[in-house]
Amino acid sequence: QYLSSQPSAMASTTEPNRNPKYDPKKPHIADTPLTRKNWYKHVNWLNVYLILGIPLMGFIAAFWTPMRAPTIIWAVIYYFWTGLGITAGYHRLWAHKSYSASLPLQIWLAAVGGGAVEGSIRWWSRDHRAHHRYTDTTKDPYSVRKGLLYSHIGWMVMKQNPKRIGRTDISDLNDDPVVVWQHRHYLKVVFFMGLIFPSMVAGLGWNDWVGGFIYAGILRIFVVQQATFCVNSLAHWLGDQPFDDRNSPRDHVITALVTLGEGYHNFHHEFPSDYRNAIEWHQYDPTKWCIALWGKLGLAYDLKQFRANEIEKGRVQQQQKKLDQQRARLDWGVPLEQLPVIEWDDYVDQVANGRGLIAVAGVVHDVTDFVNEHPGGKALIKSGLGKDATAVFNGGVYNHSNAAHNLLSTMRVGVIRGGCEVEIWKRAQRENKDVQYVKD
Amino acid sequence: QYLSSQPSAMASTTEPNRNPKYDPKKPHIADTPLTRKNWYKHVNWLNVYLILGIPLMGFIAAFWTPMRAPTIIWAVIYYFWTGLGITAGYHRLWAHKSYSASLPLQIWLAAVGGGAVEGSIRWWSRDHRAHHRYTDTTKDPYSVRKGLLYSHIGWMVMKQNPKRIGRTDISDLNDDPVVVWQHRHYLKVVFFMGLIFPSMVAGLGWNDWVGGFIYAGILRIFVVQQATFCVNSLAHWLGDQPFDDRNSPRDHVITALVTLGEGYHNFHHEFPSDYRNAIEWHQYDPTKWCIALWGKLGLAYDLKQFRANEIEKGRVQQQQKKLDQQRARLDWGVPLEQLPVIEWDDYVDQVANGRGLIAVAGVVHDVTDFVNEHPGGKALIKSGLGKDATAVFNGGVYNHSNAAHNLLSTMRVGVIRGGCEVEIWKRAQRENKDVQYVKD
Ligand code: HEM
Ligand code: HEM
Ligand SMILES: [Fe+2]
Ligand SMILES: [Fe+2]
Ligand SMILES: [Fe+2]
Ligand SMILES: [Fe+2]
Repeated sequence: QYLSSQPSAMASTTEPNRNPKYDPKKPHIADTPLTRKNWYKHVNWLNVYLILGIPLMGFIAAFWTPMRAPTIIWAVIYYFWTGLGITAGYHRLWAHKSYSASLPLQIWLAAVGGGAVEGSIRWWSRDHRAHHRYTDTTKDPYSVRKGLLYSHIGWMVMKQNPKRIGRTDISDLNDDPVVVWQHRHYLKVVFFMGLIFPSMVAGLGWNDWVGGFIYAGILRIFVVQQATFCVNSLAHWLGDQPFDDRNSPRDHVITALVTLGEGYHNFHHEFPSDYRNAIEWHQYDPTKWCIALWGKLGLAYDLKQFRANEIEKGRVQQQQKKLDQQRARLDWGVPLEQLPVIEWDDYVDQVANGRGLIAVAGVVHDVTDFVNEHPGGKALIKSGLGKDATAVFNGGVYNHSNAAHNLLSTMRVGVIRGGCEVEIWKRAQRENKDVQYVKD
Repeated sequence: QYLSSQPSAMASTTEPNRNPKYDPKKPHIADTPLTRKNWYKHVNWLNVYLILGIPLMGFIAAFWTPMRAPTIIWAVIYYFWTGLGITAGYHRLWAHKSYSASLPLQIWLAAVGGGAVEGSIRWWSRDHRAHHRYTDTTKDPYSVRKGLLYSHIGWMVMKQNPKRIGRTDISDLNDDPVVVWQHRHYLKVVFFMGLIFPSMVAGLGWNDWVGGFIYAGILRIFVVQQATFCVNSLAHWLGDQPFDDRNSPRDHVITALVTLGEGYHNFHHEFPSDYRNAIEWHQYDPTKWCIALWGKLGLAYDLKQFRANEIEKGRVQQQQKKLDQQRARLDWGVPLEQLPVIEWDDYVDQVANGRGLIAVAGVVHDVTDFVNEHPGGKALIKSGLGKDATAVFNGGVYNHSNAAHNLLSTMRVGVIRGGCEVEIWKRAQRENKDVQYVKD
């Protein structure tokens, strides 16, 4: 994300945010309110030109550039290569160290990743680690809390205060010769891998220099950029949260399809050092498939994976959380401790006076309105009024369903002192050996 | 299910199981083992002839019977009518009293239900109530525990001991004039509505008496029977159990499609007096749609529905049960009470001697193998060894994810006497106001 820093830092080999024009004493433009008069100062015009202007010219030029089949095929292939450079290289290898790569693979990934024109590995990983460590906070460089469009592209086309972005440890990257070399020679890498190499393949291969430049170069860059930007926008906006819903990352197959498999983003934020983003075999994660293949070929090793036990624990906890929320929204009847305590004899008297009360497990229930609706017939439920119906309710006559227990608990009106005619109740329980769900 | 009783009771108006040939002193054939020599005695040949023999002849006759479009259309329409007679009439109206019907609707349902040839309302409902009350037990007339084929058709083509079937209360049906009339005149109803009426419509309508008899009569009966039998077989075998998995009923769209909407059978066994089987608008339950329409037209009233609150409670409980089972299968680390208690100074000493121990919230964890894999880098995790890392772990440096807490708990090796350096811990907690998940 060289695009996120001050523009002139782009090709600099010093700290990305040390811009000669930048004066730490003056308030940064991003920290001043956006008004009608100063809005153009908020815009990072260089980035607008790079991300939107050049592709626009490419689209216009495409009208005069014949589409030749081999060039289009090559553009698609190169789209996958450069996309993988970002997903398998920048992201999973360098930002997260989720596996190790042999030197040739490292060089190849650094090269094609550069061809995606999304900044050097070092810059990209620094921002990305800040994004993981400070997700959704103001220190997150592309926080979706500032809007979907902001997280997709706004954070690049609007100026940012470089001090805002959270600090992260990139000492491992500073020790990595490939990363350092790519960072130092970034402009050369970008021009060669982004534009010259794809044109050369088409030019030397089937003599379509211009087509190679427009289709496999400029427009392919645009598509790769927009696709990978979706990891910051779509993946924090669309889909489910099977592992944690405290933050914004989400899992969705559409995002996965667009981003070479980076769409299982809720999983990824929870288990960032897992080389997989999709854990099921049937989910779309070509980046994972490639890394696994490189592993088999000996080009990659040390593929990190969280144990299934840890992953399932996360899933169970999140499900539990959702279930607890659901449960809290439901009416489970008056809690026992809030019910009035009544005497057994009072209970019997009230029924004699015509109230439809029934005692089950020491709790008195008013079933007056329910008697005629009882699925087991009026006669049976009436036979329990004014009596201790614990045993008949729990299997003596019929072992009622969960639903019946739940319904019963909504009809609570009192608790019997001493927990009902205890001895009767105890005997009844003993007699009903196959009673399993005595909840009421 | 007239087919389930002794055959000669079919048209009798007395108790269905009082068969003159039946001698209560002799052991019933169904209670004697099935052998090579006596197997044919176990078979209820009359039912084999009625359910399988006649349709077979119908299929053969169909080779010589031209298929005329109006007849086929009529057969399909009559299939729906007679199917509804069973699902909306026999099942939801009479067996479960899930709504009330005006007299004309009752008569119509009793008539077309008879045309499905599945026994009188009275017999059918008696068995069906036993099926609900004693689901999956030996008292269940068509228990799927005896095999899928048995629940589908075996219980009819094999002889049954009528005493085996559980007792139920059908006094309400004995008081219902339509039910009693239909039971008394059952044979006439069956011949007229099953065969004569469909032939007459085709014969008088477009002069296709034979086609009407074969297609809208015999073969339509076969299809309606097999379809509704699926409620006893498929609906107890295929699909999910969102409300209760103690018994066999299951929800599946395929069963629903086959049975005019009776496929949400797990719901139905849990909430039998609900006039709906499918509760979502997008699920297929044409029986429900018809009842609701009759309600709008004033033909049906008192449509019973369980409150959404009660239904959701059932769903939440079942999900909780599944979640608890999942949780029990996972490794959550050694329980705290099984860990050895160690002194703070011992902990510090062991780290000085090279062990990679880290204390978080009064528990000591062995992270020796994890230091190099730590997603936040070696440096940070090393900085916590031999110290109280509660605060840094819980947000002081980084507010770790659920996954990190879970992983940490698998690394437990001891508890610190006195719960760690209590004062340090307390202060740290106070400083980290936004800590939400302090689980470890
Ligand atoms: C005390 C309040 C009662 C409530 C809230 C209640 C609720 C229910 C419910 C919802 C059902 C439908 C099936 C099920 O969900 O399990 C049912 C069925 C039944 N109940 Fe009750 N019941 C009560 C009392 C009784 C009593 C006292 C008896 C017997 C003495 C009884 C006997 C039956 C029987 C035999 C069935 C089975 C009906 C069938 O499936 O055909 N119930 N009851
Ligand atoms: C004590 C055992 C520790 C375990 C099991 C552990 C585990 C983890 C895990 C699984 C992550 C990945 C992100 C996440 O799931 O939240 C992580 C990230 C992190 N940990 Fe730890 N950690 C430990 C100790 C520490 C300590 C002591 C510190 C700091 C003093 C620390 C600082 C960090 C930081 C800063 C990250 C963020 C890395 C990033 O997302 O770029 N961890 N830790
Ligand atoms: Fe993210
Ligand atoms: Fe990431
Ligand atoms: Fe059933
Ligand atoms: Fe039923």
